[in-house]
Amino acid sequence: MHKVAVIGASGYMGGELLRLLSQHPEVQVRVVTSEQSSGKPVTDLFPNLTVLSHLRFEPALPEAIAERADLIFVSLPHKLAQGTVAQFVRRGKRVVDLSADYRLKNTKTYQDWYQTPHRYPSLLKQAVYGLTEFYRTKIKKARLIANPGCYSTAALLGLVPLVQRKLVRLDSIIVDAKSGISGAGRSGLSIHQFTEANEGLEAYQIGHHRHLPEIEQELKALAGRSVQVTFTPHLVPLNRGILCTIYAKLNQPRRWTATDLNDLYHTFYKNEPFIQILRSDTAPNPKYVRGSNLCQIGLAVDTHTQTAIVITALDNLGKGGAGQAVQNMNLMLGLKETAGLTSSGVWP
Amino acid sequence: MHKVAVIGASGYMGGELLRLLSQHPEVQVRVVTSEQSSGKPVTDLFPNLTVLSHLRFEPALPEAIAERADLIFVSLPHKLAQGTVAQFVRRGKRVVDLSADYRLKNTKTYQDWYQTPHRYPSLLKQAVYGLTEFYRTKIKKARLIANPGCYSTAALLGLVPLVQRKLVRLDSIIVDAKSGISGAGRSGLSIHQFTEANEGLEAYQIGHHRHLPEIEQELKALAGRSVQVTFTPHLVPLNRGILCTIYAKLNQPRRWTATDLNDLYHTFYKNEPFIQILRSDTAPNPKYVRGSNLCQIGLAVDTHTQTAIVITALDNLGKGGAGQAVQNMNLMLGLKETAGLTSSGVWP
Amino acid sequence: MHKVAVIGASGYMGGELLRLLSQHPEVQVRVVTSEQSSGKPVTDLFPNLTVLSHLRFEPALPEAIAERADLIFVSLPHKLAQGTVAQFVRRGKRVVDLSADYRLKNTKTYQDWYQTPHRYPSLLKQAVYGLTEFYRTKIKKARLIANPGCYSTAALLGLVPLVQRKLVRLDSIIVDAKSGISGAGRSGLSIHQFTEANEGLEAYQIGHHRHLPEIEQELKALAGRSVQVTFTPHLVPLNRGILCTIYAKLNQPRRWTATDLNDLYHTFYKNEPFIQILRSDTAPNPKYVRGSNLCQIGLAVDTHTQTAIVITALDNLGKGGAGQAVQNMNLMLGLKETAGLTSSGVWP
Amino acid sequence: MHKVAVIGASGYMGGELLRLLSQHPEVQVRVVTSEQSSGKPVTDLFPNLTVLSHLRFEPALPEAIAERADLIFVSLPHKLAQGTVAQFVRRGKRVVDLSADYRLKNTKTYQDWYQTPHRYPSLLKQAVYGLTEFYRTKIKKARLIANPGCYSTAALLGLVPLVQRKLVRLDSIIVDAKSGISGAGRSGLSIHQFTEANEGLEAYQIGHHRHLPEIEQELKALAGRSVQVTFTPHLVPLNRGILCTIYAKLNQPRRWTATDLNDLYHTFYKNEPFIQILRSDTAPNPKYVRGSNLCQIGLAVDTHTQTAIVITALDNLGKGGAGQAVQNMNLMLGLKETAGLTSSGVWP
Repeated sequence: MHKVAVIGASGYMGGELLRLLSQHPEVQVRVVTSEQSSGKPVTDLFPNLTVLSHLRFEPALPEAIAERADLIFVSLPHKLAQGTVAQFVRRGKRVVDLSADYRLKNTKTYQDWYQTPHRYPSLLKQAVYGLTEFYRTKIKKARLIANPGCYSTAALLGLVPLVQRKLVRLDSIIVDAKSGISGAGRSGLSIHQFTEANEGLEAYQIGHHRHLPEIEQELKALAGRSVQVTFTPHLVPLNRGILCTIYAKLNQPRRWTATDLNDLYHTFYKNEPFIQILRSDTAPNPKYVRGSNLCQIGLAVDTHTQTAIVITALDNLGKGGAGQAVQNMNLMLGLKETAGLTSSGVWP
Repeated sequence: MHKVAVIGASGYMGGELLRLLSQHPEVQVRVVTSEQSSGKPVTDLFPNLTVLSHLRFEPALPEAIAERADLIFVSLPHKLAQGTVAQFVRRGKRVVDLSADYRLKNTKTYQDWYQTPHRYPSLLKQAVYGLTEFYRTKIKKARLIANPGCYSTAALLGLVPLVQRKLVRLDSIIVDAKSGISGAGRSGLSIHQFTEANEGLEAYQIGHHRHLPEIEQELKALAGRSVQVTFTPHLVPLNRGILCTIYAKLNQPRRWTATDLNDLYHTFYKNEPFIQILRSDTAPNPKYVRGSNLCQIGLAVDTHTQTAIVITALDNLGKGGAGQAVQNMNLMLGLKETAGLTSSGVWP
Repeated sequence: MHKVAVIGASGYMGGELLRLLSQHPEVQVRVVTSEQSSGKPVTDLFPNLTVLSHLRFEPALPEAIAERADLIFVSLPHKLAQGTVAQFVRRGKRVVDLSADYRLKNTKTYQDWYQTPHRYPSLLKQAVYGLTEFYRTKIKKARLIANPGCYSTAALLGLVPLVQRKLVRLDSIIVDAKSGISGAGRSGLSIHQFTEANEGLEAYQIGHHRHLPEIEQELKALAGRSVQVTFTPHLVPLNRGILCTIYAKLNQPRRWTATDLNDLYHTFYKNEPFIQILRSDTAPNPKYVRGSNLCQIGLAVDTHTQTAIVITALDNLGKGGAGQAVQNMNLMLGLKETAGLTSSGVWP
Repeated sequence: MHKVAVIGASGYMGGELLRLLSQHPEVQVRVVTSEQSSGKPVTDLFPNLTVLSHLRFEPALPEAIAERADLIFVSLPHKLAQGTVAQFVRRGKRVVDLSADYRLKNTKTYQDWYQTPHRYPSLLKQAVYGLTEFYRTKIKKARLIANPGCYSTAALLGLVPLVQRKLVRLDSIIVDAKSGISGAGRSGLSIHQFTEANEGLEAYQIGHHRHLPEIEQELKALAGRSVQVTFTPHLVPLNRGILCTIYAKLNQPRRWTATDLNDLYHTFYKNEPFIQILRSDTAPNPKYVRGSNLCQIGLAVDTHTQTAIVITALDNLGKGGAGQAVQNMNLMLGLKETAGLTSSGVWP
């Protein structure tokens, strides 16, 4: 059994990570940290995790923890994660960082978006962006994985085939994203209270959500050309789930159909265990993949405007976060990529 | 007191219409029809409407009803409404039709989208599209109002200023619409059951929703040019409410800002009692207008892609349906336009 | 127009009070206070109340406010309300207090349940418990109304007929109450966040909820005998609404039926504009009275255990709070009791 | 691998059973039947079950199916199940029946509650009531398991210790039960549509729900005395989950405390892998066991009325149905009782 630690496990993402790890056949959670909840049993914060009732939160002391675990998940807030990640890597530990701190390769971009300098530029260079389907080889050998943002995963899995195959006009890409409230974390904000979120629906951070530079960085890395994306996230009253509706103008003169796109995506994602290309009569819906590591992709063409419409659905805590982190861990540890991730979605 | 009848009042739209009319200071509901529920008290289908407990559903017999009411609301399903509307108009009654049957001016387009011929083309010519803010003068004198679709209202109120003022590229318009489940009616479909809709989120009828030709017809009527719109409706787990996120590329070389758009919309909708242009720090949210006849509009510009983002929020049963129908009735009867429609949204 | 002030209006109860008052035909809100939000427009906290966009929150300065308003609503937290209420009464103002501070007649009981002494025992004696249906005459002349708790209203409206008419064993009364999340206020607690409340359901404060002594006090006042009630509140994932399922063993040897109880309640609440006794084929449901001042009552007898089951449904912010406060205000000001309270529930 | 068939798998219970079986390490689903959906792939009805995309629904032909499977789950509607179950047992198959048809031992009681005669009284005698914790030994050897109702499981797990240990007055038992909407099945009824169930809350079938005779039968079997229970089910807007709040008067003169009850239940359910007795500071909540086979039990005493309050929480499709069916199957097949049932609840 591989021994792992989860640093900063008191949020929803940490809780989902613990749930997945507790059911993983070849991994054991040895250390769980939280400054605020230090001393409390894990079940105080996650009453569903009675299977981990022997574990208590402890403070994040890298020295001691490094001796008790082989691989470290860091699930701290942005900015806080930087240093902690560095301390574990310095001690020879392999790290999966679920924060945004090692995602943006350009330190200037990082500073612009996170209002703080990046203090570990050389480590940043070594970090591998953990979009598993695209960086599998690098992930296997990486010391540090920057686990992608939830929106970024949903947008990129839908966009990369279109952009890489040069099917669409690069100045026409729009990502209209809808997320469940768990994406906002345990915020304590009144807009995230049940009373205010329930029966509500709104856009937020239009044009300046922090997952935007991630999306553009990776589209550039994969398409070889600078792409500017219009990205509008929305909050929708459901616990978990992201749906991205992606629009892009198809290049002329060829007239594409949904079937063409379907064939292309099928080929592109052939053999991918967690990517499901849906038939045109089925709509992607995060409800179908809740609690799983799956991402559904649906394809349509609005022929009267020659617009490709790609729809992706995933669980923001699953493939959009903790699930993908475990997928990356599996590769790093030489395990089967799907180990511990074979559960179907819980429906209805 | 003006006497009105509601034909086909057993659905959610009919129920909301009855609620609004029952609170209207100058109108009295005299007749309520439903074939299936004929003989039952109104409160059997709408337990909230105890104020109308003296009314029972009856069969829709135009001859008799025309003698008991001055103005007729028709809230029948598409195709069924055609003939009933015609019968009342023929008897000299003024009619507000909440179905789609008199919205599309072109009978060929109607037949393409509704798979049935239009049997009253001359009456169709007389019908006025009831988007009140734009057809006020005609509505006052009209014998027949084709009350707009819920999505159409939300899309047009957001789009018309952009298109009319020629700010945007006409081949770039995308309407990503999200609707609560009441928009689907009392369908009996399992996908609309609580268990399957709750915690779910999906797109439907991509590129072929019947409100699309309405939107395109009216944009053409108002902008004088043929416009093709990409329209994607989504079902979101809330009872009431539509949010439209509208994207359009701003014409170059001028670089527009959110403030520019805000000023333009403020001027455009000056003195409109039901249109609220929100400050940039407030997000339109149908939760804020639930049960009211209001439409909120928010404006943003994604400057790095020069894309205008217009967001509209309304209650699909309010300004998107029954509310607008009452607003039109007020004009037809020479009443104050806001009569019976001054309620604020019920929140939270 | 009567001039009123709302002291401490930043919570859900304050917001609902403002909504109702803004639609009241004979009352005008002149002053709205909130220490934390002082200086902000009302619409910052209640985006649905654009009709009050001319009002800003101000600090609660009794001296100045007393000159600008005739009747004062106090919607402050328990303990804080005591003194503020006293200051307004001392200045000759009539007050409706929505806090719990003047509900418990016995200062010892108050101190036991609220962990603080009552500093205005003589004012407490003058306060009238504002359960309108039972204290109408006193309310008309009162200087200070202690507006009942939401659970208390729902429990008492259901229980008083049973207890007063001596139909049930007084040691057998159980109130199993279910409330929407708005009853918990704008708490900021993570258990009230959407993610944690949605799809959840739990009992809380079993046997020690603060509305229990209120219920027992008033049952004693009305039945003339000391009654001990088992009271279990539950949180249910809906925004608004309380459902109380009340159980009591029927006295032998007479065997009661649902029809008997129905007749009794019909007679008991004859002429009450806000109490609806439902037929046995209709179930009380807070959804049917949402946004209104109505209380539905349903009656059943489990004949095989000779247990009366009384079910009451109301909107915790309506008849359970702000609605009843306005009803009391109407009586105090000599207005029609139903003024401003005639709206039907908003459904669905 | 043991081969199993699921007869009548098109409902929510069938879907959950398929989900659990598809993840079971020692069982393989070989046959899935549905008359209405015959020929369709399983994923048409359960889009989350892509892991079973090789399976198609077929008609229920006992002859052929008996050759392809060793153990048969019957998930047909009441009345329909009777004969199908008999056909499989006659062919020597072991059967777990999820319908109510073999639960009531008294054929007269069955006929009273289900309005149809029981045509297999001798088979009925052999059937073992599948409340696993109490009938473990019999289940191991049984040919036919009558899998308990969801409410019955929740009520009995809470009540049996109280009744068996003679702690409470047998004429005082009240079960106030709350269920998510999946308990109503894929009904197509408008009251179960999202729009009508969401934000709603009501009691139904007061005193005459069909799980009542089950509860009373088993309390008698276990306590040796006839017990009459007041049982009120409620529909609550959540997908899955049952919460039972159980009230019973404690026998005098001993004064019981919550700690006493806690100790008693701890001892009673010692070593039970799926029963969790919660500390007094934690509230049972079906949200914590969603998707799992767990049942949480919380204990309180209202000392001022000497009432025991036992609260049980489970997933109506889990321990309340498909989970318990798999648990019973495990025993019948000589597998580890927890095989395939070790998942934690999915939260939030």
